[in-house]
Amino acid sequence: MRPLILVSNDDSYMARGVHALIDRLVKFGDVVAVCPQHPQSGQSMAITVNEPLRITRLDDYNGARMYHVSGSPVDCIKLAMHHILDRRPDLVVTGINHGSNSAINVLYSGTMGAAMEGSAFGIPSIGFSLTDHSADADFTPCEKAIDVLVEAALRHGLPEDVALNVNVPNISGTPAEMRLCTPCRGRWNDEYKEYTDPFGRKFYWLTGRYENLEPENESTDEWALAHGMVSVVPVAIERSSDICRSVSWLPEAIAAYNG
Amino acid sequence: MRPLILVSNDDSYMARGVHALIDRLVKFGDVVAVCPQHPQSGQSMAITVNEPLRITRLDDYNGARMYHVSGSPVDCIKLAMHHILDRRPDLVVTGINHGSNSAINVLYSGTMGAAMEGSAFGIPSIGFSLTDHSADADFTPCEKAIDVLVEAALRHGLPEDVALNVNVPNISGTPAEMRLCTPCRGRWNDEYKEYTDPFGRKFYWLTGRYENLEPENESTDEWALAHGMVSVVPVAIERSSDICRSVSWLPEAIAAYNG
Repeated sequence: MRPLILVSNDDSYMARGVHALIDRLVKFGDVVAVCPQHPQSGQSMAITVNEPLRITRLDDYNGARMYHVSGSPVDCIKLAMHHILDRRPDLVVTGINHGSNSAINVLYSGTMGAAMEGSAFGIPSIGFSLTDHSADADFTPCEKAIDVLVEAALRHGLPEDVALNVNVPNISGTPAEMRLCTPCRGRWNDEYKEYTDPFGRKFYWLTGRYENLEPENESTDEWALAHGMVSVVPVAIERSSDICRSVSWLPEAIAAYNG
Repeated sequence: MRPLILVSNDDSYMARGVHALIDRLVKFGDVVAVCPQHPQSGQSMAITVNEPLRITRLDDYNGARMYHVSGSPVDCIKLAMHHILDRRPDLVVTGINHGSNSAINVLYSGTMGAAMEGSAFGIPSIGFSLTDHSADADFTPCEKAIDVLVEAALRHGLPEDVALNVNVPNISGTPAEMRLCTPCRGRWNDEYKEYTDPFGRKFYWLTGRYENLEPENESTDEWALAHGMVSVVPVAIERSSDICRSVSWLPEAIAAYNG
């Protein structure tokens, strides 16, 4: 039996990026794409709890079965697993995102949220993003990275609970190099544009300027992308690593509570 | 100057849990609460990118300045930092959530999403949850845990990028013990209830049954809660730990790309 590959994204079923991804995946297996009906950028791992959801079958695309779901990227993965797929997928692939999901953006990304949800189901999961927000972006630079990583992930799997966050620089042609990276430490500044409505009331729109806190660190995804390389960052959904246990005052506070 | 404590949640400014939290915090410092206008359960670290946001000042509550924001819990923290607070808070405290955020639920929780956003700003951040979903829950069991952990976090801070996920069992009185725990490995099964609308079309509503994959492991948050203890789980927002680098085939795949 051919491998089953579940595809999702956060830019909706109409996005050029998901079609470019499917074009690349159909040679590796049977592809089913379950994408949000409406754009869901920035939806992280949000789930819809207070409203019902609908599943709509669409026309096939390039041999792939296509659906849209009236919710978030994570809703798409959950509904695919429980109500759409008739067998367990071998791989979850999300994207190709229109825009970077490097550095701290991985936390807010719906495309990576869907990949993390795939990992939560114990399925090897990879999210792909291109550092170009435009609706008509050219996804050619992603092709080789998809081929190499999908082939390897189908053959070898991934450790449980680890997804791959792959970002591809928006350059002409195929990036010459791929790197295993750490997520760059940074933050967003000046995050809102302020407006005044016709009634004199203020409103705010998210924007911002990314500040790279380690621009000289050659091991980060930001550095790799700035130098025309593909970045690969493994991401754990289990976020309570041994490192976290080093909150030095916690044992004492807990003893205070217990004593 | 008194410490400044920023409060948020995901159950909205009207929830009993956030008022119970504020009641506990006002003795430690100046409290400003910026909560979602509408319930935002399950919103994870979602941000609003395609719509504008509004900030509304509400009546003070028990000496705390109160606002609501027309977006997600993370939107609340971002707008508080950029447009509401006039100085950097010493602590972000979120909750008290109506319902558990133990185990894998931490990934979907808006209350923990807001705490993680506090950590992303480099501010010590703690989220509190009570294992009782009801709107009129009694938050008394949380009081001692809040007192002990807020006092210690204000005094000692937290490692950068580490938030605390504190869950309190819904028992009568004050839990006798608090434990440093690992997040229990588990998953949600049968996640959707299926309905048929008056036109014969199916729709789906998220529900489910949590399956504990390590019920005998006494170090997990689920075990602690099931035994009437308060669980404390440190959570890292940097999710690419050294453990993740152990994707054994990645160096070879990257060499294949580069060669």
